[in-house]
Amino acid sequence: MTERMEKIAVRMLGECRFASPLSLSNEVGDGVGNFVRDDTWVRYQIEVRGEGSTSGGPLFEKAGPRERLFFSPTQTKAAIVTCGGLCPGLNNVIRSAFLELHYNYGVPQVLGLRYGYRGLNPVRGHSPIRLTPEMVERVDKQGGTFLGTSRGAEEAAVMVDYLQRERIDVLFCVGGDGTLRGAHHIQEEIQRRGGEIAVVGIPKTIDNDIQYCWRTFGYGTSLETAREILQYAHNEAKSALNGIGLVKVMGRDAGFIAAGAALASQEANFTLIPEVPLVLDGEKGFLHVLERRLVARGHAVIVVAEGAGQDLFEVAGDERDASGNPRHHDIGTYLKARISEHLRARHVPFDLKYIDPSYIIRSVPANSEDSILCDQFARRAVHAAMSGRTDVSVGFANGAFFHVPLAMVTSGKKQVNPEGEMWLSVLAATGQPRSWR
Amino acid sequence: MTERMEKIAVRMLGECRFASPLSLSNEVGDGVGNFVRDDTWVRYQIEVRGEGSTSGGPLFEKAGPRERLFFSPTQTKAAIVTCGGLCPGLNNVIRSAFLELHYNYGVPQVLGLRYGYRGLNPVRGHSPIRLTPEMVERVDKQGGTFLGTSRGAEEAAVMVDYLQRERIDVLFCVGGDGTLRGAHHIQEEIQRRGGEIAVVGIPKTIDNDIQYCWRTFGYGTSLETAREILQYAHNEAKSALNGIGLVKVMGRDAGFIAAGAALASQEANFTLIPEVPLVLDGEKGFLHVLERRLVARGHAVIVVAEGAGQDLFEVAGDERDASGNPRHHDIGTYLKARISEHLRARHVPFDLKYIDPSYIIRSVPANSEDSILCDQFARRAVHAAMSGRTDVSVGFANGAFFHVPLAMVTSGKKQVNPEGEMWLSVLAATGQPRSWR
Amino acid sequence: MTERMEKIAVRMLGECRFASPLSLSNEVGDGVGNFVRDDTWVRYQIEVRGEGSTSGGPLFEKAGPRERLFFSPTQTKAAIVTCGGLCPGLNNVIRSAFLELHYNYGVPQVLGLRYGYRGLNPVRGHSPIRLTPEMVERVDKQGGTFLGTSRGAEEAAVMVDYLQRERIDVLFCVGGDGTLRGAHHIQEEIQRRGGEIAVVGIPKTIDNDIQYCWRTFGYGTSLETAREILQYAHNEAKSALNGIGLVKVMGRDAGFIAAGAALASQEANFTLIPEVPLVLDGEKGFLHVLERRLVARGHAVIVVAEGAGQDLFEVAGDERDASGNPRHHDIGTYLKARISEHLRARHVPFDLKYIDPSYIIRSVPANSEDSILCDQFARRAVHAAMSGRTDVSVGFANGAFFHVPLAMVTSGKKQVNPEGEMWLSVLAATGQPRSWR
Amino acid sequence: MTERMEKIAVRMLGECRFASPLSLSNEVGDGVGNFVRDDTWVRYQIEVRGEGSTSGGPLFEKAGPRERLFFSPTQTKAAIVTCGGLCPGLNNVIRSAFLELHYNYGVPQVLGLRYGYRGLNPVRGHSPIRLTPEMVERVDKQGGTFLGTSRGAEEAAVMVDYLQRERIDVLFCVGGDGTLRGAHHIQEEIQRRGGEIAVVGIPKTIDNDIQYCWRTFGYGTSLETAREILQYAHNEAKSALNGIGLVKVMGRDAGFIAAGAALASQEANFTLIPEVPLVLDGEKGFLHVLERRLVARGHAVIVVAEGAGQDLFEVAGDERDASGNPRHHDIGTYLKARISEHLRARHVPFDLKYIDPSYIIRSVPANSEDSILCDQFARRAVHAAMSGRTDVSVGFANGAFFHVPLAMVTSGKKQVNPEGEMWLSVLAATGQPRSWR
Repeated sequence: MTERMEKIAVRMLGECRFASPLSLSNEVGDGVGNFVRDDTWVRYQIEVRGEGSTSGGPLFEKAGPRERLFFSPTQTKAAIVTCGGLCPGLNNVIRSAFLELHYNYGVPQVLGLRYGYRGLNPVRGHSPIRLTPEMVERVDKQGGTFLGTSRGAEEAAVMVDYLQRERIDVLFCVGGDGTLRGAHHIQEEIQRRGGEIAVVGIPKTIDNDIQYCWRTFGYGTSLETAREILQYAHNEAKSALNGIGLVKVMGRDAGFIAAGAALASQEANFTLIPEVPLVLDGEKGFLHVLERRLVARGHAVIVVAEGAGQDLFEVAGDERDASGNPRHHDIGTYLKARISEHLRARHVPFDLKYIDPSYIIRSVPANSEDSILCDQFARRAVHAAMSGRTDVSVGFANGAFFHVPLAMVTSGKKQVNPEGEMWLSVLAATGQPRSWR
Repeated sequence: MTERMEKIAVRMLGECRFASPLSLSNEVGDGVGNFVRDDTWVRYQIEVRGEGSTSGGPLFEKAGPRERLFFSPTQTKAAIVTCGGLCPGLNNVIRSAFLELHYNYGVPQVLGLRYGYRGLNPVRGHSPIRLTPEMVERVDKQGGTFLGTSRGAEEAAVMVDYLQRERIDVLFCVGGDGTLRGAHHIQEEIQRRGGEIAVVGIPKTIDNDIQYCWRTFGYGTSLETAREILQYAHNEAKSALNGIGLVKVMGRDAGFIAAGAALASQEANFTLIPEVPLVLDGEKGFLHVLERRLVARGHAVIVVAEGAGQDLFEVAGDERDASGNPRHHDIGTYLKARISEHLRARHVPFDLKYIDPSYIIRSVPANSEDSILCDQFARRAVHAAMSGRTDVSVGFANGAFFHVPLAMVTSGKKQVNPEGEMWLSVLAATGQPRSWR
Repeated sequence: MTERMEKIAVRMLGECRFASPLSLSNEVGDGVGNFVRDDTWVRYQIEVRGEGSTSGGPLFEKAGPRERLFFSPTQTKAAIVTCGGLCPGLNNVIRSAFLELHYNYGVPQVLGLRYGYRGLNPVRGHSPIRLTPEMVERVDKQGGTFLGTSRGAEEAAVMVDYLQRERIDVLFCVGGDGTLRGAHHIQEEIQRRGGEIAVVGIPKTIDNDIQYCWRTFGYGTSLETAREILQYAHNEAKSALNGIGLVKVMGRDAGFIAAGAALASQEANFTLIPEVPLVLDGEKGFLHVLERRLVARGHAVIVVAEGAGQDLFEVAGDERDASGNPRHHDIGTYLKARISEHLRARHVPFDLKYIDPSYIIRSVPANSEDSILCDQFARRAVHAAMSGRTDVSVGFANGAFFHVPLAMVTSGKKQVNPEGEMWLSVLAATGQPRSWR
Repeated sequence: MTERMEKIAVRMLGECRFASPLSLSNEVGDGVGNFVRDDTWVRYQIEVRGEGSTSGGPLFEKAGPRERLFFSPTQTKAAIVTCGGLCPGLNNVIRSAFLELHYNYGVPQVLGLRYGYRGLNPVRGHSPIRLTPEMVERVDKQGGTFLGTSRGAEEAAVMVDYLQRERIDVLFCVGGDGTLRGAHHIQEEIQRRGGEIAVVGIPKTIDNDIQYCWRTFGYGTSLETAREILQYAHNEAKSALNGIGLVKVMGRDAGFIAAGAALASQEANFTLIPEVPLVLDGEKGFLHVLERRLVARGHAVIVVAEGAGQDLFEVAGDERDASGNPRHHDIGTYLKARISEHLRARHVPFDLKYIDPSYIIRSVPANSEDSILCDQFARRAVHAAMSGRTDVSVGFANGAFFHVPLAMVTSGKKQVNPEGEMWLSVLAATGQPRSWR
C-alpha cells in the first residue's frame, strides 16, 4: 500500500544558533525526556479504506521542545496577549506559558499585554504587566483572564511599531479565528520590515470550531456547565404541566456545545445546531414534532446553538440587522415566541422557561481536562517560538500536538458532521428525527 | 422585671381522642425523645432593652409531636400539594412529610396531588399519585417537584368538594404567600361546611420574605448558586476594560437573596434591593457613583433584586404595564439601558455583561442546610395536622419551630431592615453609600 | 407572668472616651443603621412552659457597634491569630476582621500572627505579617488559614511580653476550647500587669460543640462535604453484595457532624455519636442489628463520630494509650474490625469500605452560609474590642450575636441531646433503634 | 513513501444474514448518518519520522454500526455484566448499551446480571434484572453500578452453561484486565462447544492502564476529584509549619491518575509513580529533596500512586505479604513513616497530613467528558456484537474507536512513558528532579 502525504511547511525566522537549556536528550531509553526532532511528523488522516493506495492527507510538524533554538533564552523578551470573549482556561494558558518561559527557558522578561490587541496600541494607554511567579500563583483556579481582553483589532503597523520599540522577540496571541488572523497580519507586517519576531497563536474558542484542532481548551468545561443547566431546565420542565425548558448555548457556526451537552446530560429531547437546517412549520417541522412530544410525554427540553436556524430570519426579512448580517438574530427568543404562538394556536397548555446562560458558561474556571489541555497548548507554543517558528498556531488532533500555519488554521471553520458519529449519538440520545423536512 | 406576652391561639379541629403511635415519652432524662406538651410556647422577641418592664411580644405554640392525636393514624388519608414557582427543597419536603406519615404514624394512604391547586379541581384531569417509599427514594437529590406545580388558584368550593369526595383528612399545602392564602380559604370553606379536615401550610419562598419565618427552605441554596454567579460576573467584569457585571436575582418585595449573595460572595460592589430607594441621577445617584467607581477601579459588579427601583418606572410612565402594576417592570434590562446611556454620554468606555440566572437558581437540588430545614418543616407539619391543628403554618424563628395561624402569616411580608445588621454588613462588604440621595 | 433573668457581665478595660468613626445613628427610622446601646440584652432561653412564673435564664449583652470606644481607632494596633485544626472559614474571619478594622474603623496597623500561639513567642522566630487589602483579596475563597496555625499553647507571660513590647492593643484569638482558654490566660496575665489590651475570642470548632454558640462557622460546610461522602459510601455499599459503607467523621465529644450529615444526606442507616452509648454485642447490640439490616436489604451505610463508643475501649483495656486517655482510640478501624469479625463468624458475606475523610472535610473553602457567619462573627468581635470589652467571646444563639465571658464559654461543651429534636429526626431518617440495649 | 501495516483480524461468529434496522445510509453527503463499511481501518501509529519508508503499525477495524447483522435483532437476547472495582461511568455504560439495544436495534430482552461474574453462576443465587427504560432513567447521574459488581471469576464452563440455558446471544463484559481475560475464557469455552454467542468487552479501569485505549471512562472524572483533593492537601500543607500533604491515589501499575492530577491541579510538588524508580535515601533521594524543599518553602504536597516504590519493600524484606506479592504493600503509610522518621532525625519540625481518598474518587458520578465517553464505548460495543463480532473489546486511540481482540488487549498494560510528553509536563509542573539517583 502506498500513499501520498503532504508535509505542511512552517515559517522559520532563521538558523537555530543556540542550544536549548532544557535538560532533555535525543536518546530513547535513557530515562531522560526527549527533544522532538525536526523531521517528526504527525498524520492528520487516520482512517484507511479498503485495499488500494490511499492519500494520507497532510502531515504536520510535531510540536515540542527542540534541541536548537533561534532565540537566546537569556536575551529574549516575550509577551502574551489574550483577545476576544472569555473562555475557561485563559489564565491557565498565560500561567503555563509564563512558567515555561521563566523557569525552563530562563527568559528574563515576560510581559502580559492588557485588554487584547488594545494593549499593543500605546494610544490606548494600557501599560503591560511584567509577569512574576507570585502573580500567576493560583490564577489557574480563576475564570476570566487577569490580563484583560477585548474584541476587535488594532492596525498591524501600529502594533508592530510597539513590538519593535519594546524590543519584544516573541509574541503569543491567545484567541479565536479573528485573533489568529490578526496575528497573521502582525507577522506579515514584521516580515515586510524584515523583523525577527516570532508570532505564535494559541487557539481559543469555546465553540470548538477551529480547524486542525480536535478540541480547544474551554470546550470541555463548557460542557460541564451546560450539562448542569440542561439538568435544571429538565427540572423546570418536569415540574410544570407541559413544561418546556429552552436553553440557548454558544455556537455561532458550529453546534459542538449543544451536541456535546446533549450527549453529556442525556436530558435534551431536541438539539438544534447550525449544521442541520431547521424547519419550524409543516407536519415534520420542529413545532409539530415538539407539540406531539409534549402531548405524549408532558415535558420537553430543547438545547439550541445560537447559530441554529439563522436562515429562518431571511424569510422574516425585517428582522435582519443594519449591516444585513443574519448572524445576529437571536434564535433563542425567536424560538420562544414561535413555540408559544404555535402551542397557543393549537390550544395546548404549556409553561416555557427560557434560559440563556452564556456568560455563566464562559467565565468559570477550567475543569481538570481543560487545565491539562491549556498546559499542553501553552508549553508547546513556547517551544515553537523559542525555536524560531512564526506565523504558526499550535494544532491538536488524534491526541497529538503539531504546528499549523496561521493562514491554514483561519481558512475555514470546523463543524459538526451531520452524518458523523457525534451527531448519530445525539440523535440516539434525544430521539429526535434526523431532519425537519 | 415583668412583661406582657400574647399567646397566639391556633385553631383545633376537636378533641384529641387517639394516642400517638410514636415511641416518645414525657419524661426528660430517660433517654427517650419527648413529646411536646401543649402548654409549651416559643418567644418571638428575644431582645430586652434597659431595666424597665418590657412587652415580650407574641408567644407561639411550639411545634412538634403530640401525645394525643385528633386523627386515628391508621384511618387517616393525607394529601400533599406543591404550588407556585420552583424552590430548592420541594422534593425533600414531600419526601419527609410522606416518610413521617407512612413510617412513623402508619398512615396508610398519602396522595401526591399534581400541578398545584389544579390537582384539586377534577376538571383539570390530573389524577393524584399514591406515594410509596420507592417513589420518594432519591427525589431529595433532585431539583423541582416531582408532583408538578402551577401558579394560580382554583375555587375553594371546588377544591373542598374534591377533598370531601376523596375523603382526605389532612391536606399539606406547600407554597408562598398566595398558596397559604389559598389554604386559608380552603379551610374557611371546610369550616363553613363543618368538615373535619386539617389544612396545614408549609411556607415556601425562595425570596425568604414570609413573616414569622426566619429562614425558608431554598433560600440558603439560592445563596450558594447566586454567590457562584456573582463570582462569574466578577470574572467577566475584571477581564474587560471597565467591565460591569450586572446580575439580576429574585426578590420581588424583599432583597434577601441579593443581600445574602453579596455577603456570601464579597464580590459585589453594589447591591440594590427594594427596601432601599434607588435614585439613578444626581451627583449622589447610582449612575454617578458607578461611574466614579469604574474610573477609579476599572470594573464593577452589581447585584440587583428584581423588585428594586420599581418606583423609577412611575416617572417613565409609559413603561407601566396594562394593569397599572409597576411590579412587572424589568429593572435588570432597564438598569442595563440606563447605565449604558449614562456612560456613553460621559464618554467612559465600558463593557457590560447582564446575567439573569433566575431559573438556574431555583431549580437546583437543596443544599445540606436546606435539606435539613425541609425535613424539619415537613415533619413538624405532620405533627401539627395529626394532632388536629388546622389553618396553621409552620413558623421558624430564633432556631425554634412553632405554629402560626395562616391569616397571621399572610398578613404582611418580611423585608430587609435598612437599619439592621444584615444591611450594615452588606454596606461594609460592598463599600457602597447608604443612600443614593 | 414574671421571670428572673440574670444579666451576664462582661469585663471592660475602662471608660469609653472616643467617638466611633462609624456613620451610624441612635435613631430608629431615619434610614441610617444603628449603634447598639449598652443596655440591650439577648435572651438565651426562649421556651416558656405553662402559665406560672418562669426563670428566663441568662441575658447576654447584645454584640454590635458601639457609639463610644475605649480605643482611639487611629492609634490602635490590632493583631489576629488562628489556632488549632483547620476549619472552613478561617480566612474569611481574618479577612472580615481586617476589613472592618481597616476600612470602617480606620485602624492603621493590623498584624497577622503566624502559626497559632507560636506567633506570640519570639523564640519561635515567626515574624508577623502586616495585613493589607491586597493580601486578603480572594482569601475567603480558599480553605485553610493563610496565617498558618498550630496546636498547643505558649506561656502566657511570654505572650504578654510580646504583646506589650509590640504595643498591640487588641488581640483576636480564633480557635476552639483550648484556644479560648489560652486567650483567657493571656487576659489574666495582662490584668495582673494592669495592661490595657483587649483580648477577644472568635469561637472555631468544626465539631460545633462550643457552648453558647448555636452554630459555629465551618460546621455547615462540613455537612455539605460529609453529605457528599455519605452519598459515595452509599454508592459503594449499593454496588456490592452486602456492601457496607463505613464513614468516620469528626466529633470528639459531640456528634453534630455525624447527625447533621445523616439528616442532610438521608442515606445513612446508622449514625453513631458519643452522646448515645454504643453497645456492640447482644441481640439488640449494633452488630446484630447491622447483620439483620444487611440480610434484609443487602447494604448498609454507617456514619460514626470519632468520639463514639470510646467506653468500648475500657473493656479492651490494653488498647488504651500511654497517657491512659481513651479518647485517642480509633473507633473507625475498631468498628471495621469488629464488624468484619462478626459477619465472618456468622457466615454472612459482605464487602466493607471504610472511609476516613477528615482532612478533606476541614480544608475546603467556606460555603455561603459559613461565609456569612464568618463575616458576622468577625465584625462583631471587632466592635467588642474597640469598645474596650475584653476576656470575651462572640456568642450566637437564637439568631442573635452577643458577648460571653471566656470563662463561661469554656466551662463545658455543647452536645447533641438524645431526647431532642435533632436526634429524633436522625432516628426517623436512619430507622435505627433508639438504644443498643 | 511506502509502509507496511498489519490489519488486525477480529473473530466473527458467521455470515451476516440480517439487515440492520438502523436508518443509516452508505452514501456520504445525503445528510443521513453512515454505516461503517467493513473495510474501514484505523491507524494506531500516527507519528512519521524522516523521509524513508516507515512501518505503519497495526490497523484496527473501525468500530460503528454495520449494514448487515449476524443476529436478528427482534430475536436476540442480550446481557450485561459489570465486574471489579467501582469506576465513574458504569451506570452510563449499562444505560447506553441498553438504550441502543432497546430503542435502536429493537432487541426485546436485555438482562442485567448481578454482582459481576457471580451473576453467571446460578449457585450464587443472584437473579438477573430485566432492564427497562424506566429502570435506567437517571442512573447515569449516580455513581456505582446498579447491577452490583464483585471481584473474582467463576468457572468458564459454569458461566457458559448459564448463558446457553438462558439462551443469551450477546454478552457485554464491562471490566478491567481480569474481567476481559475472563471474557476471553468464556468465549473460548463457547467456541469449544460450537456456540454462537457474541462476547464483547468494554474496558473499564480508573487507572487508565488498558492497552489500545488512549483514555478509559472514569479516568477523567478521577482527575477532577483527585485535583480537588490535592487542593485540600495544599490548603492543609500551607496552613501548617512545614506542612506536608501526602495523598495516595489509585494506580497499581501505572501512574496516570497521579500524573494527571498533578497536571490538572498544578499544586503537587512531588509526583511519585510506578514507572519512575523511587529512591528514598541518599543526597539525591526523595527524603533529602523533600527536606530541602521544606526548609526553603515551608510546605510540600506529594501525590503518590499506590503502585509507586514497590521495590522499596523488597529491601525491607519482612514487609512482603504471605503470598510474596510486593504489590500489596501500602506505599502511603510507608512513606508517611519514612518521612516522619527522616525529618525527626534531622530535627526539622513538620506537620504531615496523610489522605487516602480512593473510595471517594471511584464512587462519584461520571463527569461530562466521561459521560460522553461511556456512551461512545457502549453503543459501539452493541454494534460490534450485533454484527457478530466476538472475543473483542472496544478500543480507542487517536480519537477513533475500533475493535481489538481480547487477547491483544490483555497481553500487557499501558504505562506512563518517563521520557514522554505527559511526564515532562509533570516535571515542569512540580519542579521535581527527573530521577532520585
